[in-house]
Amino acid sequence: MSLNIAAIREREQGERRVALIPLVAQRLQHLGCTTALETEAGSDSFYPDTLYKNTTIQSDVGTLLASADIVLAVNPPTPDMIARMRAGSILISFIYGRTHPDVVKALQAQKITCFAMEQIPRISRAQAMDALSSQATLAGYYAVLLGTVHMPKILPMMTTAVGSLRAAQVLVMGLGVAGLQALATAGRLGAVTEGYDVRPETKEEAHSLGAKFVETGVDATGQGGYARELTAEEKVKVKGVLSDHIARADLIVTTAAVPGRKAPRLIDAEQISKMKPGSVIIDMGAEGGGNCEGTVAGQSVQVGPTLLVGPVNLPSCLSEQASELYSKNILNLLQQIIKDGKLSLDMTDEVIAKTLVTHDGKITNDGVREAVEGPTPASAPAPAAGATPTTGSKG
Amino acid sequence: MSLNIAAIREREQGERRVALIPLVAQRLQHLGCTTALETEAGSDSFYPDTLYKNTTIQSDVGTLLASADIVLAVNPPTPDMIARMRAGSILISFIYGRTHPDVVKALQAQKITCFAMEQIPRISRAQAMDALSSQATLAGYYAVLLGTVHMPKILPMMTTAVGSLRAAQVLVMGLGVAGLQALATAGRLGAVTEGYDVRPETKEEAHSLGAKFVETGVDATGQGGYARELTAEEKVKVKGVLSDHIARADLIVTTAAVPGRKAPRLIDAEQISKMKPGSVIIDMGAEGGGNCEGTVAGQSVQVGPTLLVGPVNLPSCLSEQASELYSKNILNLLQQIIKDGKLSLDMTDEVIAKTLVTHDGKITNDGVREAVEGPTPASAPAPAAGATPTTGSKG
Repeated sequence: MSLNIAAIREREQGERRVALIPLVAQRLQHLGCTTALETEAGSDSFYPDTLYKNTTIQSDVGTLLASADIVLAVNPPTPDMIARMRAGSILISFIYGRTHPDVVKALQAQKITCFAMEQIPRISRAQAMDALSSQATLAGYYAVLLGTVHMPKILPMMTTAVGSLRAAQVLVMGLGVAGLQALATAGRLGAVTEGYDVRPETKEEAHSLGAKFVETGVDATGQGGYARELTAEEKVKVKGVLSDHIARADLIVTTAAVPGRKAPRLIDAEQISKMKPGSVIIDMGAEGGGNCEGTVAGQSVQVGPTLLVGPVNLPSCLSEQASELYSKNILNLLQQIIKDGKLSLDMTDEVIAKTLVTHDGKITNDGVREAVEGPTPASAPAPAAGATPTTGSKG
Repeated sequence: MSLNIAAIREREQGERRVALIPLVAQRLQHLGCTTALETEAGSDSFYPDTLYKNTTIQSDVGTLLASADIVLAVNPPTPDMIARMRAGSILISFIYGRTHPDVVKALQAQKITCFAMEQIPRISRAQAMDALSSQATLAGYYAVLLGTVHMPKILPMMTTAVGSLRAAQVLVMGLGVAGLQALATAGRLGAVTEGYDVRPETKEEAHSLGAKFVETGVDATGQGGYARELTAEEKVKVKGVLSDHIARADLIVTTAAVPGRKAPRLIDAEQISKMKPGSVIIDMGAEGGGNCEGTVAGQSVQVGPTLLVGPVNLPSCLSEQASELYSKNILNLLQQIIKDGKLSLDMTDEVIAKTLVTHDGKITNDGVREAVEGPTPASAPAPAAGATPTTGSKG
């Protein structure tokens, strides 16, 4: 019997992505697997059922789940869906176990071997599986364009018969994957760009994209490449410098988001009150409570001179290519665990060990276990494996 | 007594522009005029009242109109507003007299000297007054960005850890001012761009923007630089060539609009049915009935594989800079008719003669007169002065 790999239709409101695209289905078949898809799972990302060749199109999700060795999804399936999976089968999806204890408990109960895509370690070998990065890249591009259609002015300098229009000032705060792509996109459109991050090593990356780097004179480099907490004095200093740049910007994109955690505050109400009339902020931290004071997730609100846009699920806005990259990320992970058409789980492999959340009824990730089952007094403090920042700044 | 120049707040639904910006108000004061503004007329274009220095801010529009020597507006004021203007005073605005006979009659009744901004002749000397061009430039930029936020994929080629995303194909139909700016904007963002126009002389302009030119083998050059009607045979030939390019496009921007006339049909339902899943059309001809079969002005409709977006009043989306350019266009016209702080109307001047719609109770434009009063049997057919194409293709 060959491995049967099935992708479900996403249930979450506003989700347009799919975990399996036709090209990846074909690749999996070449690996000796069979593929199945819930009816119209790819429709919202413009992969109609007819494009999935040699794939079982199944309208009954229960049948689909019960016949799958490996289930693919974008968002965490509901506990009810997990209960309908075959005991001991595999699930690959974003899970965010620390904030979804009910999902984790269902995975344990059904003895699911679950790989959480947000846990892919950020090591060279795993880059091709790094779904947080692939999705953040697209989100960073889209955030700038979302800004441009809300602005009362254009980004490029433009010479007209009645004189020149000045190029807009764009400030990107948080220079992770999303932030760098935002800088690149604003630069392509001709804006004058500035980047800011608490990690001074991002300065060169900003420069390589033609952007200036906002120097605050504070180095927040911490352990393991992540930012350390600033002192009160440092915070005042940083704020003073940033306030000037914020006040000059026509468009700001903030990208400091940590999945499952509250987004750090980068801009407060006082700073917004001093911005230009007609200025726009795209707050990519909206889902985590916002990087800006006053952000409302899923809404655009006028706050004094500034339109504060709080988008949710930006990758879903580019559903076709977001699905393409996500599905290919999953393919690369599957190639680690499928050998000659059969499952081959090497639990000592770093990628597999770090990505695994549950296996054989147990929670295999320390951070998730602590969040779901409470702290284990005997063990050392968990290294917060679920705290890997996604889209940008680690401030 | 110095000339008093007043700008009203726009009444039209969705209009965010203003005909007078603070900088132009200041320039007019330097010309020896006084300036007045209806309360909050500039708010939606982010010019708060406080920015208008030495300008009377007037909340009562009746008082404003009755005290003005020259009234500035974006859209045609209502007949009621015109009736409250001082008899014999001047109005400068978009008028579109051929489709607004009630406005023209009110202008006659009040003996208003009215300059229609859409009638500015397209001669070198008048370029700095050409409001249709200035607004179309901004609209062309915005149309592409509006397209990008509706597309499920990105415009640029992008190399990622899981392989490259291909650059999107963008086709712009109608290479007037708006179309060329659309090509330029899509090119900036890294799309593979193609331009099409019935006028083969636009080929070089497309090439200069890095775009390919769609060759149909049909030359529709007509009199005076405008396109002639194609024969039935030519139409079939053109359609055959275009259909292939339409089917390959991820984003199409159509720009064939003639104010006050029905927009020409560039794409039919059959062609749309063969487009790619997830493709997007921005139909800039929406207000005139659409360049595409199925366009609904002010709405986005999914037609088979394609999202058909029918925006209205695109310049208003960039209200700050659209107002800036429009206001400067008006300033340049005013500099033609104000000498030493006094009115000086040279009716033999080509710009003044062609732009004037009504004067001293008479309709001074042949096309408008015919539309409002019916054909004059004694006179030759009117040269359709109101038919100057605005945003692009003259097809």
